[in-house]
Amino acid sequence: MATQPFVAETTFHVRYAETDAMGIVHHAAYIVYFEEGRSHYMRQRGSSYAEFEKGGQYMAVTEVQARYVRAARYDQRIRIRCWVEQIRSRGLTFRYELTDETTDELLVTGMSKHICLNKEGQVIKFPAEWQAWLTG
Amino acid sequence: MATQPFVAETTFHVRYAETDAMGIVHHAAYIVYFEEGRSHYMRQRGSSYAEFEKGGQYMAVTEVQARYVRAARYDQRIRIRCWVEQIRSRGLTFRYELTDETTDELLVTGMSKHICLNKEGQVIKFPAEWQAWLTG
Amino acid sequence: MATQPFVAETTFHVRYAETDAMGIVHHAAYIVYFEEGRSHYMRQRGSSYAEFEKGGQYMAVTEVQARYVRAARYDQRIRIRCWVEQIRSRGLTFRYELTDETTDELLVTGMSKHICLNKEGQVIKFPAEWQAWLTG
Amino acid sequence: MATQPFVAETTFHVRYAETDAMGIVHHAAYIVYFEEGRSHYMRQRGSSYAEFEKGGQYMAVTEVQARYVRAARYDQRIRIRCWVEQIRSRGLTFRYELTDETTDELLVTGMSKHICLNKEGQVIKFPAEWQAWLTG
Repeated sequence: MATQPFVAETTFHVRYAETDAMGIVHHAAYIVYFEEGRSHYMRQRGSSYAEFEKGGQYMAVTEVQARYVRAARYDQRIRIRCWVEQIRSRGLTFRYELTDETTDELLVTGMSKHICLNKEGQVIKFPAEWQAWLTG
Repeated sequence: MATQPFVAETTFHVRYAETDAMGIVHHAAYIVYFEEGRSHYMRQRGSSYAEFEKGGQYMAVTEVQARYVRAARYDQRIRIRCWVEQIRSRGLTFRYELTDETTDELLVTGMSKHICLNKEGQVIKFPAEWQAWLTG
Repeated sequence: MATQPFVAETTFHVRYAETDAMGIVHHAAYIVYFEEGRSHYMRQRGSSYAEFEKGGQYMAVTEVQARYVRAARYDQRIRIRCWVEQIRSRGLTFRYELTDETTDELLVTGMSKHICLNKEGQVIKFPAEWQAWLTG
Repeated sequence: MATQPFVAETTFHVRYAETDAMGIVHHAAYIVYFEEGRSHYMRQRGSSYAEFEKGGQYMAVTEVQARYVRAARYDQRIRIRCWVEQIRSRGLTFRYELTDETTDELLVTGMSKHICLNKEGQVIKFPAEWQAWLTG
């Protein structure tokens, strides 16, 4: 039975440096927004990624994908929703949805896949408490 | 008689994408933080820069300078203070001070100088209400 | 009958600002590398994208995807290969392959999808000469 | 007696991601260009900065300054000239000059100051061979 995943939400202003000569947010900036969504997700779940790295573990990105529905502009208030679609011992998939904070119009959707590495760059298992995110 | 300028304050998390291989925030990222400080200053003073551009005026950067005192790291909470040091009809100088939000340790100081351009790229006067910022 | 597409190749050094605290190139930087691959493709085919925009047309990104195989580091020489996978009157798909210039080890693969817009933001047809890229 | 310093020159295209909604190169992008100028300077002098870091030494930025004379745009060919203004055992100053490659029109000038750190973050002396750059 499908249950609703935990969705971490955060909002921010578009920075001028993130726009391009088309007058809109550059498409690569959304990949950074996704990362902010992940960072926020972890803070919300009580697992700072900064602490994770201090423990000698790294979350490497193996794939990223984004669909651009509507352009965002400088100073616009963006809401990012981020949730875990799938987590296994050796693979983690996040999903993202960016909307205008005021109108909730859809701007961009995306996903990213991750593996866990140790300091030597070897693939290791994700922490057990992360694996509980989906069911928790 | 010197009076205290209006100081706009805002805080944010360091993004992972803003760090570099030295493990700290890349020095160019602070120039973007300064810009965020300016954007926030204008919002606080009731003058969105986005609206300003819609009116066919542009604030061009003619100089920027930063001194790096202490390195910041991923996920750190940063406070940016931004104020106007000088404004004349054809020149505007902002000052910036970045500190750790928790300890208030000084991280970076800086300044930027600006002129006002019209759509044709000609230097024009800053709006009168901006010139009142210093005395307001 | 499948024919080999035209492949535009260019090489560059990884910049320090493109690395992150993991000591490797940040995953969003590759999206910018893809864009450089596209820019170079157009120059090679005689169609500067800058000229295209001056004509009042814009190539908007509707989707981007990247798979990360091996990490790149500061100062590494990267080769990017870029080609058109599909072009129709209202849709264009580029493919990308990034390798180490010396060893030719695969680093990242990806694709991006595009539409053509006029100044009013309406979807229009791609130029006929672009549509000939695949068969030319 | 003043002698002419060694000047490292390199050229590159402006990337689309480096432009902003004003249609020009964002002012923070030039700080990254300066860094490219430094990287190139070191390669030219036979001292890859990547090797330097592998040896456990880091060149930290303590100050950066830029003056913006003329805006650059997407796809423009930029020439960056970089030279050492001053080097002492514990301080190094680079100067930069960016021009249009074709017309040699001045775009941006700047400087950056640096110190040398070990892995523990303590200030140490710059390598002797670097100190010879100015006189070599």
